[in-house]
Amino acid sequence: MVTMRDVAERANVSIATVSFVINGTKRVAPETRARIEAAIRELGYRRNVVARALASSRTRILALLHPYLEARPIATANQFLMSAAHGARERGYDLVLWPVNDDEQMSHLLAGGLVDGALLMEVQLRDPRVDRLIASGLPFALIGRTEDEDLPFVDMDFTTTIDQAVGHLRSFGHRRIALVTLRMRVSTGNEPGWIMRVKSAYLAAMAAAGEPPTVITVEGTSAGGRKAARRLSADFPQVTGVVVVNEGASAGLVKESRALGRSVPDDLSIISAATTAELGEMIEPSLTVMTAPATELGRLGVNALIDQLEGVPDAPPNILIPCTLVSGQSVGPAPA
Amino acid sequence: MVTMRDVAERANVSIATVSFVINGTKRVAPETRARIEAAIRELGYRRNVVARALASSRTRILALLHPYLEARPIATANQFLMSAAHGARERGYDLVLWPVNDDEQMSHLLAGGLVDGALLMEVQLRDPRVDRLIASGLPFALIGRTEDEDLPFVDMDFTTTIDQAVGHLRSFGHRRIALVTLRMRVSTGNEPGWIMRVKSAYLAAMAAAGEPPTVITVEGTSAGGRKAARRLSADFPQVTGVVVVNEGASAGLVKESRALGRSVPDDLSIISAATTAELGEMIEPSLTVMTAPATELGRLGVNALIDQLEGVPDAPPNILIPCTLVSGQSVGPAPA
Repeated sequence: MVTMRDVAERANVSIATVSFVINGTKRVAPETRARIEAAIRELGYRRNVVARALASSRTRILALLHPYLEARPIATANQFLMSAAHGARERGYDLVLWPVNDDEQMSHLLAGGLVDGALLMEVQLRDPRVDRLIASGLPFALIGRTEDEDLPFVDMDFTTTIDQAVGHLRSFGHRRIALVTLRMRVSTGNEPGWIMRVKSAYLAAMAAAGEPPTVITVEGTSAGGRKAARRLSADFPQVTGVVVVNEGASAGLVKESRALGRSVPDDLSIISAATTAELGEMIEPSLTVMTAPATELGRLGVNALIDQLEGVPDAPPNILIPCTLVSGQSVGPAPA
Repeated sequence: MVTMRDVAERANVSIATVSFVINGTKRVAPETRARIEAAIRELGYRRNVVARALASSRTRILALLHPYLEARPIATANQFLMSAAHGARERGYDLVLWPVNDDEQMSHLLAGGLVDGALLMEVQLRDPRVDRLIASGLPFALIGRTEDEDLPFVDMDFTTTIDQAVGHLRSFGHRRIALVTLRMRVSTGNEPGWIMRVKSAYLAAMAAAGEPPTVITVEGTSAGGRKAARRLSADFPQVTGVVVVNEGASAGLVKESRALGRSVPDDLSIISAATTAELGEMIEPSLTVMTAPATELGRLGVNALIDQLEGVPDAPPNILIPCTLVSGQSVGPAPA
């Protein structure tokens, strides 16, 4: 890789002079500047650095990397973005949403010099985007966690959320409690890390309660929810309470359960976690939900990134935030 | 405003030579280049152009300007973005979502030199963003229309959509038909143009049918939908059919109508236009919907912008696309 020393040698100047041009920190004679810029071009020194040099400042643009956008009626990803964008504006930055679905898009982001830093969502346990960001040196922050919990992150507290959801159902007398979760593959073939964490938290909660677990995994759509309702009715009729961590499937699960003669909440109690109160209100009956702390996570995530960029010391590296219970009409006493 | 001519005079070169440096189209002697770049800096010629000149290429980044993101469980805005982003990738561009809520953010976008062009959504009848884009010279395309229909645009065909929705209800015998639409203000204090066009199309359809119009305007939430249900029940009980052009209010309208003793579709038929089939499926009963052509509009909009950038001649300036009827369970015969 071409270094500033290479450019200095080619242009027959000191590294300091190259630095003055690159960073715009000191005026340099036009002929010298021209020689340095020619050397930069001929050697292929990173173009983004030259652009920043001319601009004499950072771009103050941050990118929120999202592998896909939910084109389904759910809201949580948008809540993250709005909150992160607002937090960025408050500190004088612009946040853009940068869909990254392949390596080439990632390269454009890293090499283009257009952003000062990146915020990642839907972080996978082993996340190739994180590896590339570390290699590139572009500052980044994670909303979510890889396997390596030494990397600074902010994330939803899945353990507390699942414990609270299960505890809520148990307080109504439910003992056989199922988890309905999400089947999702991102472009790398991996699933986001939260899916595994939710499942682990649920299995631990069932083990602690001495109850057998029932895990049903479906797509995040009404059709997926209907599939889950049929499986519960056909294969697990003794399950009386369900924790759904799959926003898009929630409505279909309720509708199909009713169609199969299982009324909510009289025959089946349902609590939907990591979603929004508005989604709960759209469904009949209104769902008891645990609302995702999307606003807080978006704001904290962008603040962690900007603190890094601005060299704010002693910023807390890891923050976990639980969901908030909002009672609806979908949880009742376990049937006798 | 500094022009290329000013730079040429300052650097004592021809405009053509300045153009060669700006656009990277021809190699220029280093001393001449240095003089031109000094003139650019001293005169304050737009920085973005200089950056592009050094890079010898465009950024190939396009921005989709969105004044806000729906943090409610609806999907259409995300569908636009996904489709536009995919269309951009197919032609070798990256599309980023750039939330623009104030003049300062607009300035960052226009002056930063980071994007080659802009795609606008939620276009207002008089849209200050359009005025600023025209003044800046940044290429842009509209998904939606201002009052000035001479500007190239792609948009939903509201007239045909409303005519089809009203016709569908009339074919079931409904005569008193209401419109439930959206109350929304964007940061400039204006509403998006489509709200006015929907209302005009509805009023024209009622006039053509010789029926009195009933227009109810509520927020795009379940609470708004419930408010609409109460108004219909209390003030317009003779209305038997409703065209809803307000995705977020649809579920609340159905639920509250049922709570007020008005069963859907036996007592009240409801068709929801400019939404998604998935939203219709979440509701009980499944809504008859007219699905927004968001995928087509996103793709056509980004293609119109890229055609402009690449000088493709004879691209069609204006395209109107209607919605598609998807029957559910929410429309039935008018009560006797």
